[in-house]
Amino acid sequence: MAEHEFDLVVIGGGPTGENVADRAVAGGLSVALVEAGLVGGECSYWACIPSKTLLRPAAALGQAKAVQGSAQAVTGVIDARAVLRRRDEMVAGFDDSGQADWLKGAGVTLVRGRGRITAPRIVEATGPDGATVTLTARLAVAVCTGSVPVLPPIPGLAQAQPWTNREATAAESVPDSLVVVGGGVVACELAWAWRSLGARVHQLVRGPRLLAGNEPFAGELVAAALREAGVDLRMETETVEVSRVPGGERTVRFTTGGRSESVTAAELLMATGRRPATDGLGLEALGLGTAALADVDDDCRVRGVAGGWLYSVGDVNGRAALTHMGKYQARAVGDTIAARSRGEAAEPRPWTRWAATADHRAVPQVIFTEPEVAAVGLTEHAAREAGLRVRAVEYDLGSVSGATLFDPGYRGRAKMVVDEDRQVVVGATLVGPGVGELIHAATVAVVGEVPLERLWHAVPSFPTVSEVWLRLLETYGR
Amino acid sequence: MAEHEFDLVVIGGGPTGENVADRAVAGGLSVALVEAGLVGGECSYWACIPSKTLLRPAAALGQAKAVQGSAQAVTGVIDARAVLRRRDEMVAGFDDSGQADWLKGAGVTLVRGRGRITAPRIVEATGPDGATVTLTARLAVAVCTGSVPVLPPIPGLAQAQPWTNREATAAESVPDSLVVVGGGVVACELAWAWRSLGARVHQLVRGPRLLAGNEPFAGELVAAALREAGVDLRMETETVEVSRVPGGERTVRFTTGGRSESVTAAELLMATGRRPATDGLGLEALGLGTAALADVDDDCRVRGVAGGWLYSVGDVNGRAALTHMGKYQARAVGDTIAARSRGEAAEPRPWTRWAATADHRAVPQVIFTEPEVAAVGLTEHAAREAGLRVRAVEYDLGSVSGATLFDPGYRGRAKMVVDEDRQVVVGATLVGPGVGELIHAATVAVVGEVPLERLWHAVPSFPTVSEVWLRLLETYGR
Repeated sequence: MAEHEFDLVVIGGGPTGENVADRAVAGGLSVALVEAGLVGGECSYWACIPSKTLLRPAAALGQAKAVQGSAQAVTGVIDARAVLRRRDEMVAGFDDSGQADWLKGAGVTLVRGRGRITAPRIVEATGPDGATVTLTARLAVAVCTGSVPVLPPIPGLAQAQPWTNREATAAESVPDSLVVVGGGVVACELAWAWRSLGARVHQLVRGPRLLAGNEPFAGELVAAALREAGVDLRMETETVEVSRVPGGERTVRFTTGGRSESVTAAELLMATGRRPATDGLGLEALGLGTAALADVDDDCRVRGVAGGWLYSVGDVNGRAALTHMGKYQARAVGDTIAARSRGEAAEPRPWTRWAATADHRAVPQVIFTEPEVAAVGLTEHAAREAGLRVRAVEYDLGSVSGATLFDPGYRGRAKMVVDEDRQVVVGATLVGPGVGELIHAATVAVVGEVPLERLWHAVPSFPTVSEVWLRLLETYGR
Repeated sequence: MAEHEFDLVVIGGGPTGENVADRAVAGGLSVALVEAGLVGGECSYWACIPSKTLLRPAAALGQAKAVQGSAQAVTGVIDARAVLRRRDEMVAGFDDSGQADWLKGAGVTLVRGRGRITAPRIVEATGPDGATVTLTARLAVAVCTGSVPVLPPIPGLAQAQPWTNREATAAESVPDSLVVVGGGVVACELAWAWRSLGARVHQLVRGPRLLAGNEPFAGELVAAALREAGVDLRMETETVEVSRVPGGERTVRFTTGGRSESVTAAELLMATGRRPATDGLGLEALGLGTAALADVDDDCRVRGVAGGWLYSVGDVNGRAALTHMGKYQARAVGDTIAARSRGEAAEPRPWTRWAATADHRAVPQVIFTEPEVAAVGLTEHAAREAGLRVRAVEYDLGSVSGATLFDPGYRGRAKMVVDEDRQVVVGATLVGPGVGELIHAATVAVVGEVPLERLWHAVPSFPTVSEVWLRLLETYGR
C-alpha cells in the first residue's frame, strides 16, 4: 500500500472533476484525480458528445431540404453507417488517452481506480487489478462522480437487458426497431436520433407531455415533430411488464387510458431518470447518508462536515445535472479551495467567483431534437410558484423574417418571462430549428439582470432569427 | 392642389420610415408616409431580403455536406432556378401591396409620391402622374429616405450599364460570369451568392483586405473562403476604365502592383459604397446643406433647425447604415415625437427610450457570407483609437466542441475586446458558419455593461458553439 499526499483529491474524472482539478492546479495546488472508468466521463463517451453526433446529420440535412434550391441537391438519405463511424471517432473509440494526456499537461496526477473515502481527507483508490492506493488530501476532497441511470422495478426488465444511455449512444448498428420508455431529454433526443437513422421507434411516456420541466409548448412541438417523423408516441402510459424471447426482441406491456397494450421491438431503451452516483463512496464511514452530497452551500461544500474539507460538485449534488453547470460549479470550487489554502475566506456571496449562483437563477439547457428546445431560468409556472409577480409574452418564431429566410417552413415559438417588480427577464424558452445558439443572449440578460428599458438598446441584427428578442420586447410593449 | 394636415409627415417608407410612423401612431399621432417607390424600401426588395434568400441555400447545403452521414445524401448541386423563384416570392414580385396594407392596418396614411420639403413643416408629394399633394406637418417631419449607391467616376462605367445592388439582387438568371468591384459587405455577399449559384466571379478590391471596418481576421477568413470557392479575388486594385461591346460583355481594366490587367465578364456589379439619399428633398429651401441630415442629436433631431421639427432617421443620417439600426432609431424617434406632443421633454439621455445610444456603442452586424461574420461594438483598433485601455482575447472557434459537432471541419475565430478600466466587454467579432445567431449574446453584454465577473455566471449550454463565450473568458483569465 503506497501513500501519497496532495492538497486536493478529486473523485471522478468527468468534465466536472477535470475542471475542479484544473482550476485548483491553476491556483497553485497539487491535485490527484481518481477515476475508475474513462477520463472525460459520461459526457464524452455516452451522453452529450455521441448523442449530438448522432443527431447533427439529421438536423443538417433537414435544414438543407427545407430550403428551395438546396432541397433539390438532396436526393439520398442519411448514411447511418457513416454517422456511426463519425460517432466512433468522436468518442475516440472509447480510448481516453487524449484526455489523460490533457490532465497530465494540466499538472494533475491521474490515479486510475475506484475512489472511496475511508476517513476524513483520506481516499482509497482501488485499481482495476485490485491494488489499492491511499491518498491523503491535505485540504479537501471533491466528489464529482456524476450520476447513473435509474431503472424502475418493472417485472422482467432486468432479464430483458435494456439499453441505458450508454448502450443507446454506443450501439454499433441501427436497430430495426426500438422502444423508448421515458419522456425527458434523453428519451426524446435518442428517440429522435435513432428514428432519423432509420429505426422504427415507439416511445412510451408516463405523463401527459414530453419535457415536463419546460414550458408546455416545448413538449408539444417536439411531440408533433416526433409523430410527424413516424415515431409511435404514446402518452400517459404505465409500463407493466417487459419480456424477451431469449436472444430476441423485447415486448413491453403497458396500460394507457385503462387499456392494456404492448409493443415489441429489437431493442428497449430505458430513459427513466438518473440518480447521483454515490455507491461505494464510503459516505457511511463519515456518518453521512447518501443524501448528504446534495446538502451543499453555493460553494458546493457539503454542510455539516467538521473541518469543511468535503465538496460535492456536478451531477452528484443534484443542483443542475448538466455538463456545463458541472463545469461552472467546478470553476468556483477549484478557485475556492485554492483561495482558502491561501487563507482567503472566499465566501460564496451571490455572483462572486466563489459561488455557483446561476444554479438557482440561470441554468440554460439545449435539447437537440428537431426542433431544438433551448431554455434558461424560470418557466412562467415556476416563477409564479416561486412567488414572483411575472408577466410572460410569447411570439411565433415563424413570423420572424430571419426564420423564414433560414427555413421557409420555419415552425417555432418563443417565450420570455419578466419579473414585473424588478423589470428584468427571469426566464426564456425557444423552440425551433437552430435555436440552441440563440439562448445565450437570454442567459446574459438573466444573469446580468439587465433592465428591460436597457434591453431595448440591444438590437438584434436583421435578418437573423435572433430578431425574436426584439419581437418579444415589442409584444411586451413599452 | 389638395391640402392635408397630419401631426407627423414621414418621407420614405423603408423599414425606418415604417417604424417611425408605427410608433408615432401608437403614441396617438396622425401620420402621413410619403413614398415614391415600393413601401418596404431597399431592404425588402433589393438588399437584406433578396440577398439573404440568394445566400441561404448555399449555406444550408454546405452545412449538410460538411457532416458525415448527411453529406452522403447530397448528390446534386444547388438548383439556381429554384433559388431565383424563391427570391421572387420573398420580394413578392416587387408588389408592395402587402406592406401598404400593413401601413393601413397600423393607421398610417400612405401618400404615393416623391416628398420634397418646401417650407418648414410643409412637404410636397409629387405622385407618379405628376400631381402634387401638399402635406402640413403640425409637429414634425421625419426624413427616412435611406441611401443610394455611389458610382465612382471611372471612364466608360456609365455606358457599360453596371449592376448596383438592385440589379444584382433582382437578376432573373445567373450570369455566366460577373465582375464585382468592391470589398465591403455588399460586394462580398453578392460575390458569394452568385458564385454559389454557378457564376464565374472576379472580385476587384481597392484596399489590402476585405470588410475593412472589421477585425482583420474577418476579411482574411472570408477572402480565403471566396478563393476556395473559386472566386478570382484581386486585392489592392485600382479600376481604371470600363468598356463594353455593345450589348455584350463588360471589360474592366485595372492596375495592381504597378501592372495593368483586365477581366471580362457578362455582368459588372459596382459595390463601391453608398451615400445618403438627399437629392430632391428641398433642403436648400430650408437653408440647409445636404450634410445637415447627418448633424443630429441622439434623438435623430436635426440640429440648428428653428422649432426643432425636422428629424433625420436611418441610413440617411449616416449613423449606422443598417436596417435594424434604422428601425432602432425609428422607435426612439416615433416615441419621442409622440411624447413631445404631450408636452414631455423626452430628452435623449443615454440609454433611455428617447435616445439611439447604441449607435455609438453597440451596432451589431451580420455578414451572410460563408463563413458568416458577426460583430458588435468596437474592434480592438477602434477601441484604442477611442482612447480606451483595452485588452483583446481571441479563440479558435474550431476548438469548441459544439463547433466540431456542428461541422467536423469547422473553421472560425472569435475575439472579445474588454475595457480594462470598466471591466466590461466593448466589442466582439465572430467568424464561422452560423455565427450570425451568436452575436446577440455579446450585444446584450455590451449594452447591459455586464461586468466580466458577472459574465462568468452566464454559462453557455454544452455542447453549443456558444461555448466560445466561456472560452474567451477563460482565455482572458480571472
